[in-house]
Amino acid sequence: MTELSQDQQRLLEQLKEVGSRSYHDQHPFHRRMNTGELSREAIRGWVANRFYYQTQIPIKDAALISNCPLREVRRAWLYRITEHDGVQGEEGGIAAWLRLGEACGVPREELLDDRHLLPGVRSAVDAYVHFVRTEPWPVGIASSLTELFAPDLMARRLEAFQTHYTWVPSWGFDYFQRRLTQARKDSDSALDLTLCYCSTPELRQAAVQALSFKCGVLWAILDAIDLKYGPSPL
Amino acid sequence: MTELSQDQQRLLEQLKEVGSRSYHDQHPFHRRMNTGELSREAIRGWVANRFYYQTQIPIKDAALISNCPLREVRRAWLYRITEHDGVQGEEGGIAAWLRLGEACGVPREELLDDRHLLPGVRSAVDAYVHFVRTEPWPVGIASSLTELFAPDLMARRLEAFQTHYTWVPSWGFDYFQRRLTQARKDSDSALDLTLCYCSTPELRQAAVQALSFKCGVLWAILDAIDLKYGPSPL
Repeated sequence: MTELSQDQQRLLEQLKEVGSRSYHDQHPFHRRMNTGELSREAIRGWVANRFYYQTQIPIKDAALISNCPLREVRRAWLYRITEHDGVQGEEGGIAAWLRLGEACGVPREELLDDRHLLPGVRSAVDAYVHFVRTEPWPVGIASSLTELFAPDLMARRLEAFQTHYTWVPSWGFDYFQRRLTQARKDSDSALDLTLCYCSTPELRQAAVQALSFKCGVLWAILDAIDLKYGPSPL
Repeated sequence: MTELSQDQQRLLEQLKEVGSRSYHDQHPFHRRMNTGELSREAIRGWVANRFYYQTQIPIKDAALISNCPLREVRRAWLYRITEHDGVQGEEGGIAAWLRLGEACGVPREELLDDRHLLPGVRSAVDAYVHFVRTEPWPVGIASSLTELFAPDLMARRLEAFQTHYTWVPSWGFDYFQRRLTQARKDSDSALDLTLCYCSTPELRQAAVQALSFKCGVLWAILDAIDLKYGPSPL
């Protein structure tokens, strides 16, 4: 990224502001996860439900590529599909999440058949895919920028699992570990593309709204999980 | 592909029958191309218009992947996007077609800005992308099966260019040469997937109709080109 224009600098600040206000690291469920307060059932429920989000990411990224007439942007985005789907065997993020499930005691087939999937999680994730499918592709890219804030959360989560949830064997943490570095790489690329292609006042505003929407999606996922698996009301 | 069931065998025969009846190798414009009867202007018009089809293929393939919930099918289809877009620089089928354009005397920028694109070609290609975007993904795969008939046409075309259109330097034929082998590989894979996943009477019928529709798309492209660049009526 070359030096930013004033408009780009302002957009960057607005995006960071949205993330610091609305990213789901502040959700009560995540706070309790990171301080070791979740039951095994709650961890399993989170793993099973978040899996649906993982399965839809390559579908969302293919929709974005399908909306984009610029070969250089398609080229820059395509590795994300491979990153999640892998090329063969047990490669890729989806397979890594299946291993996390097994490590937490949720059998592979229970993840794959969606038996634990909550309606609120499904609708939030489906809304995200629909958003990227139907919005202009630069706005779709901006909606991925929750990745900007992911590495810190992922690092805290990994530490929380290693400290508090020692009943989960560490061979299950492959997904967390790969995202620690990959999310930074992804968000750098997505941020460059957002700043480059959200080049009108309308697109810049839409980019900020897209990130806000996406924070809402992640928050809604945790709301549904928290309601089902969270602590009973006093 | 393991041994075919009766239904699969019948589907295969129907698909081949559609191709032998409707593939655009029989179109008058292609017949004249292959017997060396086209003017330079007609060759250039064909190259410029067919380029739009090339540019939409990765968009179509990403739409198909975005419709497909099966990771193994997405994995099997993804290389097609790279095949057309390339990973960097002048790699990929689109770049190869740009070189064909330059070899034929159509500058790169005239291909990229669509100035020669005929409305009938645009609408036929857009209809194809829309079809794949909106139909079930196994039917979208079946619509790609015109590739089954492409290698023979490509071999005849390459020979025709080398024999009749010697004003086109042979460094422009990279696209034709790569498709000679790639189209066979692509169609083998697409045929296996069609026979495997078009597994109900309704999907098998839709697959046959999809191939028929796609033959119509390719035919309509040549109709529009022929009307503009073909021989004057007697």
